[in-house]
Amino acid sequence: MTNILIFGHKNPDTDTICSSIVYNNLKRLQGMDTEAVRLGEINDETKYALEYFNVRLPRLVEEVAEGQHVILVDHNEFQQSANGIEKAVVREVIDHHRIANFETAAPLYYRAEPLGCTATILKKIYEEQNVNIDKQMAGLMLSAIISDSLLFKSPTCTLQDKVAAEELAKIAEVDAQEYGLAMLKAGASTTDKTAETLISLDAKEFVLGADKLVVAQINTVDANEVADRKEELEAAIKAELSSKGLAAYVFVITNILTSDSEVLVLGEKQDKVAAAFGKTLENDFMTLEGVVSRKKQVVPQITEEFSK
Amino acid sequence: MTNILIFGHKNPDTDTICSSIVYNNLKRLQGMDTEAVRLGEINDETKYALEYFNVRLPRLVEEVAEGQHVILVDHNEFQQSANGIEKAVVREVIDHHRIANFETAAPLYYRAEPLGCTATILKKIYEEQNVNIDKQMAGLMLSAIISDSLLFKSPTCTLQDKVAAEELAKIAEVDAQEYGLAMLKAGASTTDKTAETLISLDAKEFVLGADKLVVAQINTVDANEVADRKEELEAAIKAELSSKGLAAYVFVITNILTSDSEVLVLGEKQDKVAAAFGKTLENDFMTLEGVVSRKKQVVPQITEEFSK
Repeated sequence: MTNILIFGHKNPDTDTICSSIVYNNLKRLQGMDTEAVRLGEINDETKYALEYFNVRLPRLVEEVAEGQHVILVDHNEFQQSANGIEKAVVREVIDHHRIANFETAAPLYYRAEPLGCTATILKKIYEEQNVNIDKQMAGLMLSAIISDSLLFKSPTCTLQDKVAAEELAKIAEVDAQEYGLAMLKAGASTTDKTAETLISLDAKEFVLGADKLVVAQINTVDANEVADRKEELEAAIKAELSSKGLAAYVFVITNILTSDSEVLVLGEKQDKVAAAFGKTLENDFMTLEGVVSRKKQVVPQITEEFSK
Repeated sequence: MTNILIFGHKNPDTDTICSSIVYNNLKRLQGMDTEAVRLGEINDETKYALEYFNVRLPRLVEEVAEGQHVILVDHNEFQQSANGIEKAVVREVIDHHRIANFETAAPLYYRAEPLGCTATILKKIYEEQNVNIDKQMAGLMLSAIISDSLLFKSPTCTLQDKVAAEELAKIAEVDAQEYGLAMLKAGASTTDKTAETLISLDAKEFVLGADKLVVAQINTVDANEVADRKEELEAAIKAELSSKGLAAYVFVITNILTSDSEVLVLGEKQDKVAAAFGKTLENDFMTLEGVVSRKKQVVPQITEEFSK
């Protein structure tokens, strides 16, 4: 039987890592020869979740070989996927994002739902296929939902995500609020990180017409703590702009306690990015009140502006 | 509530028409304001199925307005979809084809499975959502499976398609073999059709790198009956080649009794198409034995050759 690699996106977040582990667990219980792998270093939040539920970190893989069979979770856009993905055989996709820059030569199993988290879809698949969810898997799925929904505060969080999280918290034997805040805080420490790390920790690349942009996001409990390091951040971002030929770099600093974001925008098309939100930049910054979701409150607005 | 249009691909076949009607029926039973529409004239096979089960033909729509909400069934590639699809809001896709040239600005519900027929996926969705399948809907889903699988002979036909068809035949109160052959024969009459009709009845456009190709297919009970009209066909195809700027036009004449195909290939890159099958054309024709499935036995081979 063909060995199949299961992985999420580059710059892995908690949903990407947990979903690859959880889906791999299901496939192996069903007798398939699969392996969960990751495309990059994990962040402190994910580390907290894996350690709390005592789950082993997946192996690091940087590129896939031609003809390798793969299952993508939590992403589909090739520029967010493994190097070499164009020559791999995508067998399945389980995702909750828009679809773009994705193509296969043959039919496949593709399951996307407009929910807050890939793990919520995986919980449904476990149930549809009558597979028992154990404590560890429940803990990972719960962690993913809390991470993607910022403890149920993000507008991407649906009723299905909330209900799933409640059920999973029971199986995982934790209090969702208490565990969730501890997990988010573990990932929100910024003072111990270099500017290069902060801007790339959760960075996603988007191709919008002829332009390539990066939209990066960081969670914090004190946005000023990050914004005050503007000079450092600017140097790090400028290096990215030129090495990757980007039209703009959008760095979203989200305060998980107040649910607002400070956004630093640099690059040739920085004003076009600000215009997407009806803003003008002040000292390269803009404040987006009530904005916590890159997927729902940042990327669609920029996509629309750049398609004009 | 937003009115949502549900439709399949251009040059509609039986699966496309039946799946749009069947999914619309489900959505309306669930209280949604949807309407099944079609993007072109139906063929004689589909006409037979709709008349047999006494189902009304969906309204013809040629393009969709900007911002129109839509659900796509049985296709996803924009060039096979309604004119204006790029500016519509794709809410859902239910499909069994490869994914290509498809993009959305926002997350959506996307359900693809590598099965022989969209209707087989719809039957699963009815069951998952506990909605009763009535005789008419069963008849349409059965017709779609028989059409796409050429009465279960195509290599695209999976065990799931066969089992679904058996169950649906019982609900529809027909013998699958007897009804199926009658339906296929109703669509396989070629002598009453012009060459222009024959080559466009089930024609799909594919963009492969810098090249645009059309792969058209016709079912017959006598391949010579079609192939003998080469001069007429050639004139009709040449008109398409120049008006659409195609690199090749691939016309697959499939004998539903013997399960072989005669293929007429014209255009600048006709030899590259033949090479995809290890063939050289004779008088612009090649014979592909045991080939009945465009999706599995024709398009992937050409795609691979054109990606070299």
